[in-house]
Amino acid sequence: MASSALQISTAISSSSSAFLGHLPTTTNNVRSSKVFLPARKHVACKCVSAPSAEQTAYKTKVTRNANMAKLQAGYLFPEIARRRSAHMSKYPDAKVISLGIGDTTEPIPDVITSAMAMRAHSLSTFEGYSGYGAEQGDKKLRAMLASTYYNDLGIEESDIFVSDGAKCDISRLQLLFGSDVKIAVQDPSYPAYVDSSVIMGQTGLFQKDIEKYWNIEYMRCVPENDFFPDLSTISQADVIFFCSPNNPTGSAATREQLTQLVQFAKDNGSIIVYDSAYAMYISDDSPKSIFEIPGAKEVAIEISSFSKYAGFTGVRLGWTVVPNELLFSDGFPVAKDFNRIVCTCFNGASNIAQAGGLACLSPEGLKAMGETVDFYKENTKIIVDTFNSLGFNVYGGKNAPYVWVQFPGRSSWDVFAEILEKAHVVTTPGSGFGPGGESFVRVSAFGHRENIFEAARRIKQLYK
Amino acid sequence: MASSALQISTAISSSSSAFLGHLPTTTNNVRSSKVFLPARKHVACKCVSAPSAEQTAYKTKVTRNANMAKLQAGYLFPEIARRRSAHMSKYPDAKVISLGIGDTTEPIPDVITSAMAMRAHSLSTFEGYSGYGAEQGDKKLRAMLASTYYNDLGIEESDIFVSDGAKCDISRLQLLFGSDVKIAVQDPSYPAYVDSSVIMGQTGLFQKDIEKYWNIEYMRCVPENDFFPDLSTISQADVIFFCSPNNPTGSAATREQLTQLVQFAKDNGSIIVYDSAYAMYISDDSPKSIFEIPGAKEVAIEISSFSKYAGFTGVRLGWTVVPNELLFSDGFPVAKDFNRIVCTCFNGASNIAQAGGLACLSPEGLKAMGETVDFYKENTKIIVDTFNSLGFNVYGGKNAPYVWVQFPGRSSWDVFAEILEKAHVVTTPGSGFGPGGESFVRVSAFGHRENIFEAARRIKQLYK
Repeated sequence: MASSALQISTAISSSSSAFLGHLPTTTNNVRSSKVFLPARKHVACKCVSAPSAEQTAYKTKVTRNANMAKLQAGYLFPEIARRRSAHMSKYPDAKVISLGIGDTTEPIPDVITSAMAMRAHSLSTFEGYSGYGAEQGDKKLRAMLASTYYNDLGIEESDIFVSDGAKCDISRLQLLFGSDVKIAVQDPSYPAYVDSSVIMGQTGLFQKDIEKYWNIEYMRCVPENDFFPDLSTISQADVIFFCSPNNPTGSAATREQLTQLVQFAKDNGSIIVYDSAYAMYISDDSPKSIFEIPGAKEVAIEISSFSKYAGFTGVRLGWTVVPNELLFSDGFPVAKDFNRIVCTCFNGASNIAQAGGLACLSPEGLKAMGETVDFYKENTKIIVDTFNSLGFNVYGGKNAPYVWVQFPGRSSWDVFAEILEKAHVVTTPGSGFGPGGESFVRVSAFGHRENIFEAARRIKQLYK
Repeated sequence: MASSALQISTAISSSSSAFLGHLPTTTNNVRSSKVFLPARKHVACKCVSAPSAEQTAYKTKVTRNANMAKLQAGYLFPEIARRRSAHMSKYPDAKVISLGIGDTTEPIPDVITSAMAMRAHSLSTFEGYSGYGAEQGDKKLRAMLASTYYNDLGIEESDIFVSDGAKCDISRLQLLFGSDVKIAVQDPSYPAYVDSSVIMGQTGLFQKDIEKYWNIEYMRCVPENDFFPDLSTISQADVIFFCSPNNPTGSAATREQLTQLVQFAKDNGSIIVYDSAYAMYISDDSPKSIFEIPGAKEVAIEISSFSKYAGFTGVRLGWTVVPNELLFSDGFPVAKDFNRIVCTCFNGASNIAQAGGLACLSPEGLKAMGETVDFYKENTKIIVDTFNSLGFNVYGGKNAPYVWVQFPGRSSWDVFAEILEKAHVVTTPGSGFGPGGESFVRVSAFGHRENIFEAARRIKQLYK
């Protein structure tokens, strides 16, 4: 309906739009806006005939991508946001506290934002201006990541690809692998691994009875196995997505476990995509990079991010390490194809964000990030103590900003709804991360201290 | 070889890396760095045995993505950059002028960078900090694009998806369409359309004899047809990538031509992906948005960018319009699937870049962008006049920052090499944009005025 009406408006106003009308070279925006008003009136009255018009809507002959049709519901976190908004309109006066999506809440240290502001200002100067940067990222930032983050692990500047975030690189890696690979994921795990696999056509349909996609290997991670999968049960997997410290369970794999994982990949010729986005939250001596494990460079890619260290969830900056030692079965370097993907499908992270990344790696920046991480870890302790005091089985928290709470025999979504309805606190239902997450909820430790205390108070009230 | 040596270094230093070592919670980075030095020595001497080690390199069992293997050479622009660097090391003293890759050179207007700097600083305050933004972009920016850019064209805020650039959205659109569609492209055209199609598996092998990929419809755009394809020759195309003003030919389709194109899409049920990244460069009354054509909202997607208007090539900000009227053959809204792609494979453009986008759309920002565009258009005139004065057939320039110069009977790469070798000026070989570009070179008008004059002088010298 809109379309037919708007066709009239555009038909009448055959002029260019106002943005472009501002150009000295454009002559007809006045006519445009003059004509526009009656046209919009026209739209208004047209709307009455909406239903019938809807029925006769024009359809293209392009078939919907069957892989998109396989996806279940919405992507988890927008769905949580939707339910949160619904709750807020139901209880307009309730002070809703969000411990759902792992979104950072604390200001970015000034040493980092000042560097970004300076970079922004410099873009207005002849000396400071720059256009396209290298698709792989600023050479200096790549070199600093190699020396600062991987200083003793033999990762070269050329192995590092700076990106606009780990989530985006997961999809670029799926593009790299194509539709003929079979992936394995921890169950539960961050939904982007599975959903991007479905989109790439690597999977079959979703099997409602077992809540799994066909042709994805779900590696069950539960308290019984210390959240580390029984690798002997994995039939076959070309690409193993492994997140440690894990989102959502918050557990970090030990050096021995990761050594097993690397050995498994070597024995089976698999590629590990290791997501270390929460590595700075590790409190014990668990490895903080897969490349701490001897031989990992021949079987692993590592994705990471500044989001949860520097509060860059909105600034967007991450990186992916593809060691030159990592080879496909024909001996072709994986890094060469990833470089082609990055050059063709991406154009580099924002130069301002990259200036922030450089500041993050300065001594002051590293110190400031460490303090931010410590703040969130104090939050984590408050949440862990709260649920412990109520007698729940509580996991995670020690090495991650996520607390994984078990509600035996209950549905994750029911518990999510109960805590939202009665405590006005948003969590994340464990089953949203895979069938292995059923009966758990993930509680995020990202939040202002007073909100964490208030959420703890309400949860104690609810479950006392 | 590196790997085996580095395994030793990592084996010795089982500690975490320095980045993480800076954390108060980490105890062992001292041991780490102590152990590291001898380990690196070890690496150094190991390197001698490199060749033999190479031969026995470990290979995974993961098969290289066959689609990646189909891609020809490197992506065009990195390849140009590579040849430029090679030339500069050959002639270290030559003042090379780059009119190759369409990279902006003029500082970003202060009104825009100040807004980005202010946003960066605000991220260090409790009031100003924000984490994840909406994947589709800031509501206010989407609304301003709808009202400012498409004010009279009936595009709603919800139709607009803010992105980190048009190139990135091209790949996300390919993910949306999947591997079963057949695309059509202008020949010549921006290489990202074809290369992303190959990566998605929509094509067959590259046919060297005709320099085309199997299962892509190349719509020849040459002087003989006024750079507008003969649509009657197109067998079938699900998705038509159409760039106007065109990169590289610089020609803009007229209202009549675009009305033909929309009618063709309607008759054949095709979806047009309309790339309007250069629309502000239009001097005549050619449409600046496909949505100026009645009925386009039922058949077209529009991608655009701030890159060439505000000098955002490095800042990274663009947008894509997917009208809610656009439906797949089964009636499913294309926008719904694109929204799912954006939510799953992307996490929104940098909040600082988006603050810059808002400033771009303010009255001062629009005026400043118009002035920047006018500056580059003056450059274009200098380049057009130069080649005209030398008797070349010169196309484009009037409605685009690109000048398309014909060298009848000559190879584009030969001419590219000649101009680089003898005038130290980088251009782009027309054949890099498709077989239809053979015997042309694209000269970009992005450059400081003195460089444009100097390039013009050298070219006059070369071809006088």
